[in-house]
Amino acid sequence: MRQGLKNKRKGREAVDERRAAVEEFSGARLDTIGSCPFDPILAEKNLENMIGCVHVPLGFVGPIRVNGKWTSGDFIVPMATTEGALIATVNRGCAAITESGGANPHIVKDEMTRAPVFRVKDIAHSIEVAAWVDAHLDELKALASTTTRHGKLLSAKASASGRSLYIRFAFDTGDAMGMNMVTIASDLLARRIEEGTGAKLISVSGNYCVDKKPSAIDFILGRGKLVLADATIPRGIVESKLKVTPEELTEIAYRKNLLGSSMALSYGYNAHAANILAAIFIATGQDPAQVVEGSMVTTTCELVEGDLYISVRIPALEIGTVGGGTKLPSQSEALSVMGCLGLGKAKKMAEIVASVVLAGELSTLAAQAKGHLASSHKALGR
Amino acid sequence: MRQGLKNKRKGREAVDERRAAVEEFSGARLDTIGSCPFDPILAEKNLENMIGCVHVPLGFVGPIRVNGKWTSGDFIVPMATTEGALIATVNRGCAAITESGGANPHIVKDEMTRAPVFRVKDIAHSIEVAAWVDAHLDELKALASTTTRHGKLLSAKASASGRSLYIRFAFDTGDAMGMNMVTIASDLLARRIEEGTGAKLISVSGNYCVDKKPSAIDFILGRGKLVLADATIPRGIVESKLKVTPEELTEIAYRKNLLGSSMALSYGYNAHAANILAAIFIATGQDPAQVVEGSMVTTTCELVEGDLYISVRIPALEIGTVGGGTKLPSQSEALSVMGCLGLGKAKKMAEIVASVVLAGELSTLAAQAKGHLASSHKALGR
Amino acid sequence: MRQGLKNKRKGREAVDERRAAVEEFSGARLDTIGSCPFDPILAEKNLENMIGCVHVPLGFVGPIRVNGKWTSGDFIVPMATTEGALIATVNRGCAAITESGGANPHIVKDEMTRAPVFRVKDIAHSIEVAAWVDAHLDELKALASTTTRHGKLLSAKASASGRSLYIRFAFDTGDAMGMNMVTIASDLLARRIEEGTGAKLISVSGNYCVDKKPSAIDFILGRGKLVLADATIPRGIVESKLKVTPEELTEIAYRKNLLGSSMALSYGYNAHAANILAAIFIATGQDPAQVVEGSMVTTTCELVEGDLYISVRIPALEIGTVGGGTKLPSQSEALSVMGCLGLGKAKKMAEIVASVVLAGELSTLAAQAKGHLASSHKALGR
Amino acid sequence: MRQGLKNKRKGREAVDERRAAVEEFSGARLDTIGSCPFDPILAEKNLENMIGCVHVPLGFVGPIRVNGKWTSGDFIVPMATTEGALIATVNRGCAAITESGGANPHIVKDEMTRAPVFRVKDIAHSIEVAAWVDAHLDELKALASTTTRHGKLLSAKASASGRSLYIRFAFDTGDAMGMNMVTIASDLLARRIEEGTGAKLISVSGNYCVDKKPSAIDFILGRGKLVLADATIPRGIVESKLKVTPEELTEIAYRKNLLGSSMALSYGYNAHAANILAAIFIATGQDPAQVVEGSMVTTTCELVEGDLYISVRIPALEIGTVGGGTKLPSQSEALSVMGCLGLGKAKKMAEIVASVVLAGELSTLAAQAKGHLASSHKALGR
Repeated sequence: MRQGLKNKRKGREAVDERRAAVEEFSGARLDTIGSCPFDPILAEKNLENMIGCVHVPLGFVGPIRVNGKWTSGDFIVPMATTEGALIATVNRGCAAITESGGANPHIVKDEMTRAPVFRVKDIAHSIEVAAWVDAHLDELKALASTTTRHGKLLSAKASASGRSLYIRFAFDTGDAMGMNMVTIASDLLARRIEEGTGAKLISVSGNYCVDKKPSAIDFILGRGKLVLADATIPRGIVESKLKVTPEELTEIAYRKNLLGSSMALSYGYNAHAANILAAIFIATGQDPAQVVEGSMVTTTCELVEGDLYISVRIPALEIGTVGGGTKLPSQSEALSVMGCLGLGKAKKMAEIVASVVLAGELSTLAAQAKGHLASSHKALGR
Repeated sequence: MRQGLKNKRKGREAVDERRAAVEEFSGARLDTIGSCPFDPILAEKNLENMIGCVHVPLGFVGPIRVNGKWTSGDFIVPMATTEGALIATVNRGCAAITESGGANPHIVKDEMTRAPVFRVKDIAHSIEVAAWVDAHLDELKALASTTTRHGKLLSAKASASGRSLYIRFAFDTGDAMGMNMVTIASDLLARRIEEGTGAKLISVSGNYCVDKKPSAIDFILGRGKLVLADATIPRGIVESKLKVTPEELTEIAYRKNLLGSSMALSYGYNAHAANILAAIFIATGQDPAQVVEGSMVTTTCELVEGDLYISVRIPALEIGTVGGGTKLPSQSEALSVMGCLGLGKAKKMAEIVASVVLAGELSTLAAQAKGHLASSHKALGR
Repeated sequence: MRQGLKNKRKGREAVDERRAAVEEFSGARLDTIGSCPFDPILAEKNLENMIGCVHVPLGFVGPIRVNGKWTSGDFIVPMATTEGALIATVNRGCAAITESGGANPHIVKDEMTRAPVFRVKDIAHSIEVAAWVDAHLDELKALASTTTRHGKLLSAKASASGRSLYIRFAFDTGDAMGMNMVTIASDLLARRIEEGTGAKLISVSGNYCVDKKPSAIDFILGRGKLVLADATIPRGIVESKLKVTPEELTEIAYRKNLLGSSMALSYGYNAHAANILAAIFIATGQDPAQVVEGSMVTTTCELVEGDLYISVRIPALEIGTVGGGTKLPSQSEALSVMGCLGLGKAKKMAEIVASVVLAGELSTLAAQAKGHLASSHKALGR
Repeated sequence: MRQGLKNKRKGREAVDERRAAVEEFSGARLDTIGSCPFDPILAEKNLENMIGCVHVPLGFVGPIRVNGKWTSGDFIVPMATTEGALIATVNRGCAAITESGGANPHIVKDEMTRAPVFRVKDIAHSIEVAAWVDAHLDELKALASTTTRHGKLLSAKASASGRSLYIRFAFDTGDAMGMNMVTIASDLLARRIEEGTGAKLISVSGNYCVDKKPSAIDFILGRGKLVLADATIPRGIVESKLKVTPEELTEIAYRKNLLGSSMALSYGYNAHAANILAAIFIATGQDPAQVVEGSMVTTTCELVEGDLYISVRIPALEIGTVGGGTKLPSQSEALSVMGCLGLGKAKKMAEIVASVVLAGELSTLAAQAKGHLASSHKALGR
């Protein structure tokens, strides 16, 4: 039975039928979209109203040497992009870093947060509720654990304004990015809090989490993985590989990344971290809307004994190696290129990704310092 | 001749060879990635080191009724995502809006910016340079026009701090997102300014632009298309379609979008605008890293004579219907679903996208108000 | 011996001589400034180069009823200002609140912070230093206690970016605002950290404190006293005393305080909290530059069963009842008007001040809602 | 007739009677407060409920050499403070700058703003209203001029979100800080807009102005006087006067002012500009609550050919030499010390104040770099 646009079924036949209805509605021909090299049923939990696939060209950068706590070695990293010159640029940074001995990533915090908002009677009530939450933290932890095997409630911080109370739950989510498990757990916790305190749950997300919006709280406290990475690039490699001097890089990092971003009151003190994150996120089935908080990166360059020291601070790297889009065919293949598919791999992946962000910053700052941004876009770009 | 990872050639054979090298390096099997339904040569300007494609499942929402200045009618909108429940949620919002007579989008500004940073001698020098730019604006406009047929320099605003001078060029970029043409033009303009004033160009992008970083300047002044959209949803439709009351929506918009985001000092006063933008951007070959500034949306709900008034303010919607990834096979098909492929379509597309963002906000606020966020994720999600 | 402008002596004679030198230098007559009704030696630790006094006219508001944890009763509150209509406005708010049963202030956090910045070798080093600080927290607490009787180190949180490491010390400072004792203690702690870790102290204040600058970290985490206060004003009192309806107040709080401030990306979601703080700070010998962080107040209004609920959240109220300017003659008299002079009074004072901020917000919002801002300024103002 | 606390009369007798009532109410003795060396009637428009004066000790810094456009010469600058060491510190900076040839201030913008908020029917209506304002700008300018001799409407910029419309009026206010005249004029303009468009005025201040709250819009666009100032301090003077090297100053400016403030997401990238502004504002009868926006200063240090280059960017210096508290006896004397009393002096004063802020930054950065902050507070402070 054909149901056209209203068809809610899954599977290849349903997808084809639905696509035909869209073609009919719009007059567009969707042959390439229809050419989907995997069984749509594999994506049944990833979307609704499927009509096919969009094919994003996939390249890679690397090898990049990563000297982490959770992994160590040389890695090829997949990037899906349509922005000409991006991969070439990042790749050059990878080469310079690898030749210099590699990048040093450090995960200093790893928590996923969700913050329900409650309506309370007044401030006195908000203080009672906060005290109740503190007193019942063990119970809430136990309750959270009934909803998920991998997630673990770590803390619950209350913050109030008038009749609105926000409780920011922080979870260990194992190898999943974890937004989903955290939402389900928070919903249950919030209902227990309602029951125990008379506070009225208004939304399981009170925008004090903060998901998919840039925010000071995530910048300062971190969300997902708070990762720092650095590398020292000897002057000789800076000059031969990147065609600039360490002094030029230090100056551009100062005038552009720090002072320029401060003039614009930006939450991102970097060159283009979002580019690298977006390309890896799309390649590996991460949530691309979380590039938003991922973009709040600070990149610093310093001259140290004549060489270049470069670092990135990535306060909100929200990634997983299980769940979400990671199990889709091409996405899981992309993860396996880095050896990052499945359980036990999320921290490894974070170390690799942070290293590539560092490489991307290094190379683009050099290109801009050299005045090559426009010309490389002209030569390689769209 | 095989060159493995170092292979810089384009074309299907080069892609296959390179992918084989990556397989060999990593031990991963990349069959699905290798199954790319279009000739890789079509992507030759979109990336380097291509090894295949990542296949992002594509669905759609709609029809949604759009009552714009640049378009009017009912549209199906493609979304590429791996986040279960997203499409279903947005689609419900489209239905509610359409049944209510449609969304009303308004483009109130349309400029793409690039801001080179210069090193000047001191503040007096920065003031001279700024005056020189003002005095030579016509010359700079003419110069810019030599680099692009579609772009047009509109203004140049100087802002200085100490020995750093930022000049924010604003361009009309026609139907292209335009970052590329604007960078090429700005580079030429910056060199002319160097020559005319003795200021030293440090970077064609001084982070006062601001591209791919959240920033107050883009939030306040806009970048790309500054679009507002609204709709009035009769109480009956709110209650029957969205299963909540207008009062509940007004309360959640207040406690979550406004007060919650203010508590977190977020630049995004919305529920999940980035989700909608990311899914449409990936589907249609936009630059997904620009979801970062796209995410700075303000969503308001008000009770008006018993019905629900809802609006979004999207200060930095950076999209195009030509250039970038828009001409790739599946991406151009996706654009054609909305009738937005090619010249003369960018403003139409902006109106449609803003309308879908509105729909997404409406439906997710309702789901959260009703306490359905967790359950819908459980039912439909990963 | 006369030394004119170079005179570094204290005491009345020195003050007179110095003032004469300033008169000679500038040609100005400084008779009123010279008329200082207290012995200048009393201010010897409060300033250098004293030439007399500036006389700021002092008024009062109240009585205002305060229902706090640390105090309860009706209070007269001194305000030093030159802005006509300010006192009248705030006073009206006090009357409305008192008639409604009083304001309910709550101190939810009370910590003064100082954050030295260190230069470290690299990120690995910053992590080592942070770990060292954690491991030596008890030693650091003991060390801090050697510098002050009243201050107590509570915690030390490290945050790093590249080769810069910030350690935010939080102290209980008793009844002093405490910036001074905290700086002295932090200096000693920082030197111990240098010694123990090889980190190099760059500044005892690394702007991660953050003193006298508006900042997200203070807004979110609080600094000094984080105080919330609320009151419910019956509709009848709103209408009779304030000449507006609760609905009008709710609307102005929404469009102006919340949405307006969000449009401007302000860190202050209030009407004029800084006015009240500045006037009380000057009257009572507080540090007026700390009005900066004091200004980051959120004021909410809600309609609750037909009445008006109003609240303020003051995240960084930095005040003391000992130290600083509090012991100067007129300033200590002003403190004693509130019964807040000396030890054991700082929390009481915070509760009173927060209540007056609430009153000031209430009344000014009403005046603006009624369209009386301009006319009251015309009638009473300069 | 005695009226105690309810007494609304002006004049010395009323002040005395009122003070007696406050003494009676509170049990406090207010002798010093009562000792007010000027006739209270002079302050009749500056406050209500006057009970006397608070006497803030007044010192001075300087002479400082100022090489401005509006003034040039050596100036003594009065500062009222109770923070020991502040004047000594700033004074040292003045000496270093003067010996180096002086500070170079530049006023690059001079506009006072007020932004009423209107309720509109919907976005289409907001666009109509904005168009109406554009079309009637000349009429609005004429109308504004009926309310003030000194103020002049310069522009009106509309910004909307949903049913809220903000119109940011910018005025030239001559030598007055101008908040008052601008409010009165804006009120009239707003009522004309209501009449002409059907928009409903909600508040003459919509927090898009932004007065007495820190905000990105003021930081970026400026409010009051946007002033930049710089100086070059030869290495020899840095080392002899400030006891540090230019390299140490450059490093502290980088790690503290720029990177530290970015880590805290502060709107102030400086050391303690608010201190200097507060002390001058109180001394000269400015509005001390406007130190809030004044504090958003960026201070940069650079090494230029071995010497130190230092600059400040003060985006919102809101001062006047007429109106407000400037005509009070001691305050007008303080203004006359700088030769800044009355008409034609506001720009001169801005140049002097900016120069002193520069001096204060220079000296405090040096003290902190040298590790003297704590010790100078210990020696000179409270």
